[in-house]
This record gives sequence, C-alpha cells and structure tokens, in this order.
Amino acid sequence: MASGFADEKNGKKCGRSPFVNNPHLDSMKEDILYHFNLNTGTLNFPAKFGDVKFVCVGGSPWRMKSFAEYIAGELGLAVPNAEYPNICESTDRYAMYKVGPVLSVSHGMGIPSISIMLHELIKLLYHARCTDVTIVRLGTSGGIGLHPGTVVITKQPMDATFLPRFEQVILGKSVVRSTELDGDLAEELLQCGKDLAEFDTVIANTMCTLDFYEGQARLDGAFCSYTEEDKQNYLAKAYAAGVRNIEMESSVFAAMCKLSNLRAAVVCVTLLDRQKGDQLSSSHDVLHSYQQRPQILVGHYIKKKLNASKKS
Amino acid sequence: MASGFADEKNGKKCGRSPFVNNPHLDSMKEDILYHFNLNTGTLNFPAKFGDVKFVCVGGSPWRMKSFAEYIAGELGLAVPNAEYPNICESTDRYAMYKVGPVLSVSHGMGIPSISIMLHELIKLLYHARCTDVTIVRLGTSGGIGLHPGTVVITKQPMDATFLPRFEQVILGKSVVRSTELDGDLAEELLQCGKDLAEFDTVIANTMCTLDFYEGQARLDGAFCSYTEEDKQNYLAKAYAAGVRNIEMESSVFAAMCKLSNLRAAVVCVTLLDRQKGDQLSSSHDVLHSYQQRPQILVGHYIKKKLNASKKS
Repeated sequence: MASGFADEKNGKKCGRSPFVNNPHLDSMKEDILYHFNLNTGTLNFPAKFGDVKFVCVGGSPWRMKSFAEYIAGELGLAVPNAEYPNICESTDRYAMYKVGPVLSVSHGMGIPSISIMLHELIKLLYHARCTDVTIVRLGTSGGIGLHPGTVVITKQPMDATFLPRFEQVILGKSVVRSTELDGDLAEELLQCGKDLAEFDTVIANTMCTLDFYEGQARLDGAFCSYTEEDKQNYLAKAYAAGVRNIEMESSVFAAMCKLSNLRAAVVCVTLLDRQKGDQLSSSHDVLHSYQQRPQILVGHYIKKKLNASKKS
Repeated sequence: MASGFADEKNGKKCGRSPFVNNPHLDSMKEDILYHFNLNTGTLNFPAKFGDVKFVCVGGSPWRMKSFAEYIAGELGLAVPNAEYPNICESTDRYAMYKVGPVLSVSHGMGIPSISIMLHELIKLLYHARCTDVTIVRLGTSGGIGLHPGTVVITKQPMDATFLPRFEQVILGKSVVRSTELDGDLAEELLQCGKDLAEFDTVIANTMCTLDFYEGQARLDGAFCSYTEEDKQNYLAKAYAAGVRNIEMESSVFAAMCKLSNLRAAVVCVTLLDRQKGDQLSSSHDVLHSYQQRPQILVGHYIKKKLNASKKS
C-alpha cells in the first residue's frame, strides 16, 4: 500500500483518485475497516469496489437501503424480487449497498459518527483504486425561512458561530479545516432540481451543529436556558449569514472530502421551518415524501451523468 | 406538564426524580420524542414506563437487544421463545427494549448521537414520572496500559486535553459542564466485579473524544500527520492524568445525567491496548466475549439491587 494518489496518477488513464494522507498505511500488511467489518486481507477491494463512481451517504440505514433500490430502478439495473445485500451485514454500525457504479452507505447521526464512516470509506475507495468519484450526502435538516420540503444544496457548511470551518482536535490541539465544497457540482445539482421542477431547490449555506436541541436553539429539549426571543435572534443571525438549513454532519463531511480529493455535495431537505417551531409534528407520510426529495434529485443527477458518459 | 422535579417531590413517597430544566415544556400540549417515534399525546407514558428503575444504554442496537434478553434471564423474567419488541421499531434511529424495571436503549456512536437520545430519554422518564432511576452506559473502548478485556468503571470522563469537563455550544457560545459521575455507584459496581471474579475490573478516568482516528491518535486513519512517537507521548500524558480508556460518549452522558438528577455510571470494556496497536485485529469471538463483560457486571448489579429491595 502507498500513501498519496493511487498508481493511476502516473498511468495513461489518469483519473482523479481518492487521496489518503497517511504514510503509516505503507507498513500495514492488511487494513481492517472495523466499523464496516471489511478487511483488505480477505476481500479483493479493487474487484469488489473498483467500478464505484458515485457514493451516496445518509444518516438512516433504512433510507440508504431504499435509495439503493430506487437508484437500481432509475438506472435500469433492478432485478425483479432481488434483495440488495447489505455489504456490512455482520455489523450494525453502518449499512452499505452497491448497485452498479453507485455505493449507498449510512453514517448515523452527528459529526463523530459520520467521521468514523468517512475515514473507512476513503480508505476503501483508495484500496479499491477508484477514480473520479463523486460523493453526495443525502440528508434531512431544519430550515430557516424556507417552506418545509425545500431541498437545500449546501454552498458551504458553517459552524455554530457562522464561520465556514471545521475544528478537529488532534493530539489535544485544535486544527481548523476548510469546509469548501465543489461549486460546479452544486450548480449541476441545482440544474437537476430545475429539470425535475417537482419541488423547490436552492443553494445556500448550511449550519452544522454538535447537538440537536440546545445546539440548534430548540425550545423542546430536556434543558433550555434561553427564551423564544433569544432563539429567534440566533436564527436571524444565521439567516443573515446566508444559512438556510441546519443539520449535524456537513462540516466534517466537506472537510474530509476536500482533504481526500473527492468531488462532494450536501443535499438536504428541510422538514420544518425552525422560525415557526421546533417539533417535527408533520404526518409520517408528509415527512416520508420530503425525505425522498434528495434521493430523487441525486438519482436524476447520476442518471444524467451516466447517460452523458455513454454518449461520449 | 411542569418543569423541575416531578410531583412526587411533595408527595409522601418522595423519590429522586428525573429532572428536566425547561420552562417551555409547560406550554406544550403534547411532546413528540421524534427520534424514538413516541408521543405523549398518543401513549400513556406513566403506564408504559412508570416502573423503570434501571436504564442501560450502549452504542449498538444489536447489543442492547442482547442485553434485554440477558437481563430477562438473570431476573427470571424470560418467557420461552418470547421476542422482546423494539419499542422504537418504526424508526431506525434508536432501538429500545423493556424488561420489567429495566430499559435497554441504543445510542449510536459519538457525543451528538447519544445527546439526542439522552434529551428524549430524560423527557421520557420525566413524563413517565419515574423515580430513583439508575442509568449505566455499557460500552467498548480502547485501553491504555491494561490487558484487553479489562472492564473500566469511569471515575470521571475527561476531554482530549485531560480536563474533566464537557463543552456544549448554546446560541453559538461555549458553556462548560461538569462530568462528575456517582462515586458510590462506581464503588458498588467495582464490588460486583470482585463478587464475580471473572475478569479484571478497575475504576479509572476515561477520555472522551469527538473522533475515533485522528482524535484518538490512531495511526491507521485516512489521514495522519503525526508519528508513532507523537502518539505514544500523547497516550503517556493521558495515562499520567489517570486515563485508562478512551471512548466517544462518556462526557456528555455524565454531564446530562448530572443535570437531570440521574445516578449514572459508565462501564466499558477495553478491546485492545492502544499503546501496542490501533487496529482491532482480535477474532470476532474474542471481541464478542469482551463485549459481554459490561453486560454481565451490570446484570449482576441490577439483580443484587432488586434482591436487596425485595428483602427490605
């Protein structure tokens, strides 16, 4: 194993390769991706994953299974009565499904949970010698000043003080990383929203927090030391900084994808307008239909890209 | 609904009640615990959960199901061929099982994931008017200078700079909370380890990090900018601060349980000695048997307490 770009870098078919930046991987005979329960010593990664071009990730394992089924239908790869096996079925930490060139992976809730998954996913793509990979987080979020059901494509993830950065603690010291995402990819996804014309789609900043209740100024947690007015003032400041939705994974996702040379986007639907409330009181059916919107948008994008590459 | 201690406070049977500190809950007609998919408007919480005295939480939903089955056997409440229903079966965010006075709940990985669960669990216990509740996190961890398989009962959770505190961001401002746990409960659990004499059990400090790879000085992540020597120096500093294991949830668990008046303990097994390596390369069977140790210890404690209360 080698650190840095994969061998294709110097080959004839020079693609954009997932990047690991860890010289210690050189000295390892095998790499156990513990939370996926996958091992380079017992599985041929290039054979299993080498053709992956799109990775879609989301919090809920059920939703990522449903996305795998949906994309199989969209790409004409669906087999009647087929069950898509969970590649990580012997662990309950994450779920992973593969449909042709598309990998669908769950990441749980919050920065630490997605960060473990991304470390192992980036190593997986690297060991498999994948090239030209696009990765999209499909998520749910709280909106600010948007109709519930609006899909937000993230311009840049911001922290709870509205700065576009992700703070990582390494050896007890703070390291600040950029949360820049791929601007062209965001525009292409916005165009897909326009093509579909089924729901509102916008590009805006996304606030990424470490907590769902106090961290997002909710009034309905077990603890709350601030007033409705304090909450509204905080949300208004976020709005002024260009923030239109709030979730819990985008900042570390952007930072790690940038470090690993992956084209990355974050596409989240808003389940409610936080200026009007905190509780998720819409019916199950309404919330479920909202949650399908990022899947529909990104499914359309993948189909469009694959059709374009067939023609060229 | 009222904030503060439950009504029993002024009643004859004055128990120690779970505390919510949120005046806004007063004005809510119903409370939707979204990530549990439970609603006070449609479920009688006191009838369903009012008898809960012990709550055990852990990252993996499978492990918490297996704990429910185990404790049912230990308490003589097992019914042959019985399936324990997942109370949150209509969501895949968390899993919850109830066996007599014991609730077993999963929390996923990392501080944000357990924090969402704890907000909703504390409100659940409050709405159900539970009293005298003891809560224990059963987990896995990396050890420092301990034989793999040692069970660590946490004295105090520490952050990545070895300070016994949890930093919570509220309205964009940092609030520091104490991570003090119940010292008497820790001693009682240590005594249970001595009673059983099946594996090593110690009381020590636990470091709680936001990341599994760079955040815990691992050399096997997708990124690593430090040397083996840097890693060993960092772990040595942790050891000098009394830290004997590292995991990802204990600090917010301690902080939130303290704020809500719950007797709390953290009991984690160490799966490896981090001074000797980073990869979890032990066999599945060995790791599985290690993971059962916190369950066995806490199962023994619960049985002991329930037998003592029957006698008194």
